[in-house]
Amino acid sequence: MAGKTYSGNYFEDFTIGRQIVHATPRTVTQGDIALYLALYGSRFAATSASTFARDLGYPQLPIDSLLAFHLVFGKTVPDISLNAVANLGYAGGRFGVPVYPGDTLTTTSTVIGLKPNSSGRNGNVYVRSVGVNQDGQMVLDYVRWVMVNRREAVSEVGESVIPPLPGAVAVEDLVVPYEPGAPYDERMQALAGSTHLWDDYEVGERIDHVDGMTIEESDHMLATRLYQNTAKVHFNQFAQNDTKIGRRLIYGGHIISLARALSFNGLANAQAVAAINAGSHANPTFAGDTIYAWSEVLDRMEVPGRADVGALRLRTVATKDLPCAGFPYRDEAGKYLPGVVLDLDYTVLMPRRAGA
Amino acid sequence: MAGKTYSGNYFEDFTIGRQIVHATPRTVTQGDIALYLALYGSRFAATSASTFARDLGYPQLPIDSLLAFHLVFGKTVPDISLNAVANLGYAGGRFGVPVYPGDTLTTTSTVIGLKPNSSGRNGNVYVRSVGVNQDGQMVLDYVRWVMVNRREAVSEVGESVIPPLPGAVAVEDLVVPYEPGAPYDERMQALAGSTHLWDDYEVGERIDHVDGMTIEESDHMLATRLYQNTAKVHFNQFAQNDTKIGRRLIYGGHIISLARALSFNGLANAQAVAAINAGSHANPTFAGDTIYAWSEVLDRMEVPGRADVGALRLRTVATKDLPCAGFPYRDEAGKYLPGVVLDLDYTVLMPRRAGA
Amino acid sequence: MAGKTYSGNYFEDFTIGRQIVHATPRTVTQGDIALYLALYGSRFAATSASTFARDLGYPQLPIDSLLAFHLVFGKTVPDISLNAVANLGYAGGRFGVPVYPGDTLTTTSTVIGLKPNSSGRNGNVYVRSVGVNQDGQMVLDYVRWVMVNRREAVSEVGESVIPPLPGAVAVEDLVVPYEPGAPYDERMQALAGSTHLWDDYEVGERIDHVDGMTIEESDHMLATRLYQNTAKVHFNQFAQNDTKIGRRLIYGGHIISLARALSFNGLANAQAVAAINAGSHANPTFAGDTIYAWSEVLDRMEVPGRADVGALRLRTVATKDLPCAGFPYRDEAGKYLPGVVLDLDYTVLMPRRAGA
Repeated sequence: MAGKTYSGNYFEDFTIGRQIVHATPRTVTQGDIALYLALYGSRFAATSASTFARDLGYPQLPIDSLLAFHLVFGKTVPDISLNAVANLGYAGGRFGVPVYPGDTLTTTSTVIGLKPNSSGRNGNVYVRSVGVNQDGQMVLDYVRWVMVNRREAVSEVGESVIPPLPGAVAVEDLVVPYEPGAPYDERMQALAGSTHLWDDYEVGERIDHVDGMTIEESDHMLATRLYQNTAKVHFNQFAQNDTKIGRRLIYGGHIISLARALSFNGLANAQAVAAINAGSHANPTFAGDTIYAWSEVLDRMEVPGRADVGALRLRTVATKDLPCAGFPYRDEAGKYLPGVVLDLDYTVLMPRRAGA
Repeated sequence: MAGKTYSGNYFEDFTIGRQIVHATPRTVTQGDIALYLALYGSRFAATSASTFARDLGYPQLPIDSLLAFHLVFGKTVPDISLNAVANLGYAGGRFGVPVYPGDTLTTTSTVIGLKPNSSGRNGNVYVRSVGVNQDGQMVLDYVRWVMVNRREAVSEVGESVIPPLPGAVAVEDLVVPYEPGAPYDERMQALAGSTHLWDDYEVGERIDHVDGMTIEESDHMLATRLYQNTAKVHFNQFAQNDTKIGRRLIYGGHIISLARALSFNGLANAQAVAAINAGSHANPTFAGDTIYAWSEVLDRMEVPGRADVGALRLRTVATKDLPCAGFPYRDEAGKYLPGVVLDLDYTVLMPRRAGA
Repeated sequence: MAGKTYSGNYFEDFTIGRQIVHATPRTVTQGDIALYLALYGSRFAATSASTFARDLGYPQLPIDSLLAFHLVFGKTVPDISLNAVANLGYAGGRFGVPVYPGDTLTTTSTVIGLKPNSSGRNGNVYVRSVGVNQDGQMVLDYVRWVMVNRREAVSEVGESVIPPLPGAVAVEDLVVPYEPGAPYDERMQALAGSTHLWDDYEVGERIDHVDGMTIEESDHMLATRLYQNTAKVHFNQFAQNDTKIGRRLIYGGHIISLARALSFNGLANAQAVAAINAGSHANPTFAGDTIYAWSEVLDRMEVPGRADVGALRLRTVATKDLPCAGFPYRDEAGKYLPGVVLDLDYTVLMPRRAGA
């Protein structure tokens, strides 16, 4: 007996090449689609209507790829970041096959790097996590690194193995999750909510997404439980009372989904997210914060073999209680402004103008 | 580049006969049914149990027609009322074919009236909006008028075109959304929760629905996002801080659904809403308000060609923090009492006593 | 006319042997599964993933049996406990066939005992409630007793009929809801999140489930409406303002589900709840409370005819704002500590070590 509860892995438990099959597999349902809508109010047509999705080239209505991200990510928390001091970053996030209701997602992580900190009390752990569906097809593949406590402090910290970190996902590596479909004509554009297609965006262009959304405690906790993400700081106010912050912290992925939903106003035809190149949660968010967002076009790329769709690499910045008409970002020293909460570098797919 | 965000239509953008195909089409799922239940706690058997729905005469479990209303209505907001000063009214709302999980709803509006206000700063816009399913079948058809700002004030306001506004939907125009089914016998009545059928209601009869339901910020925002209704006043506390009211306003349709759910206690056999004849949101509601409701039978009508079901035209009044035993409504001057928040004139369908 | 609203049954309305068919039948959907996840964050693999459920021996992904409990129970509230002074207890709760999306649940109760209190103002009513699916198969069968007000006080109270109350459900009476499936090997254990199987638990063993979950008003109201449970104290803050407690009370079943979800950490392989032997809601809970839980193994039983699965009878104690490292329970006088909110005696099923 004894020792039935699970206290997560400590720095000592990670070794290069160790593979962790994460609990709990999760079947996605139409209920997830409805809840995701209720939580963020997303209006991208490809993930709202099966008719539109089929016209676009999907066999059926897919779930939002960020919902897939949260489900895949959530599974890694008990094993990777339960004893984390800090989430340091993620990179090279590439989406694979789309996820449909009925699919079951499982995540496996492999330790690819270890950097013991000189304090001897913790170290950075680099993992590559791969989410697959019930047929073993890749749904999401990404690298993440976190600072994890040691179970016991040491005086000799050992050597570092720092993996090469992927940069932005190359356009050749992007998976377009649908086949070429019906012409993206006036009717499709009206239903999608915008006439601005891939051809109409320019590198360097900035877009204020205008709208704001206030977060309540119930909202972010419903979301984070839906993803079976167990990080305590999101749920336990009694324990948070004893911390310096004193409040429940909102899961960073909740902000990503809110920012993406807000980005509809200006990017309505960005029907799919194909990659998350890098991301930083610049400041914490709490219930009561109102989230705004703006985006900058970092790159505009043709997709090999596809004349119907192009890729836009975007930076989307989310803020709290700070409207984005002035595109708030960093101060002169390069530090994020206090109102900036998310700096996301990602790649979306958008239909191209036919014959352009 | 530039101008990617959408700022909605202004009074100048509306012309008589202009047709607007609204974004975003929306596929209804079983997830919507569960969320609608969780949001309002509705207990009408025809929209709760597939067995009951089939016995009643539906081919399968339909969604609540008010959920269809919210989905159809929500799509019109970005194009019709984003720059509205006031929602002035709606009329002639007629429900068509029932909506089932898997159906995709789209809404198209036609401008049918324009009344520039003498101030030169805004005017009333009258639209007829029609929601259809993926087969083009009418799900909901209604008229709505709103006061919309002009982009720029003018000195010459031009002429008015005021359309004939429909009165209560005539009984001949009601769609009974199901075929005659099994006898509505003791067992059906027990499962439905009441022995009171169409025959038992009298014109002028008033019913206090007794129960009250307190609204939280999360509740109304989850609902309103589920409907993809983007009106900012429901979501953005930071912006509302600068308004006289200082709070997020609750979407009026949320109150309609709450009132309908509360009306179960006294109208349990009102299995379907067939028409919304007129409605007024008498006062705003906010998180923390407790909603009560009472109803008056305005008319009791036989339905042509149907001996199994009759129609009741009802006025349902919802209040906040004001129990309805005394049927609170208007003061002597005809003004709504401050606690009255909804005055809804609508028509429900209710089984008739066999052989009565 | 008049008398259309329903005010529930009073003590006088109950007679031994009276059978009550409760409104409203309820079809379970995949939406319920998603909402249940979002409300509690449960991670038991058998109710999370259809792949895992099938490997375990289910034909498809079942709903959580506690969700079935809430749905069956909720229906009884308007008829049994609307005029209750107190919920005194329940016993002998036995789960039958598993519930799948698409199933429709109905509940019927039979009055099996009546104990008029000497005050002449109320009395205890004992009912046996049986929930069935659309094929009449038993889903849940339990006994409950509540103190119910009389409509009018009497001076002669009459005789008592106190039924024999069932003790813990005997292992022979437990229904294992799935057939023997694939070997519960390393892979299954990794996906389930624990290597601790039935064989590894000892009678008397105590497990602190460590984690805590804070409850918001929206959370418990969404849940309780989802179950169509109409008890006013959960929903109506305006009416609660006039009570001594002054707050909305959280439905006791919400705490049961939270405690079960928290118990994953230490009981991850307890894939199904087979019986609720007895339960006591020791103290009320309110929004803002953080729920913790611990469990004690009361009995470890072989299941006749099944070598793949065993039964554990557990006591799970939930607390509010009180971490459970010290296993808080009762004071020296046997009274529940003020922080203890639930004392649940129930039986779970857990895979056994092959060949052990």
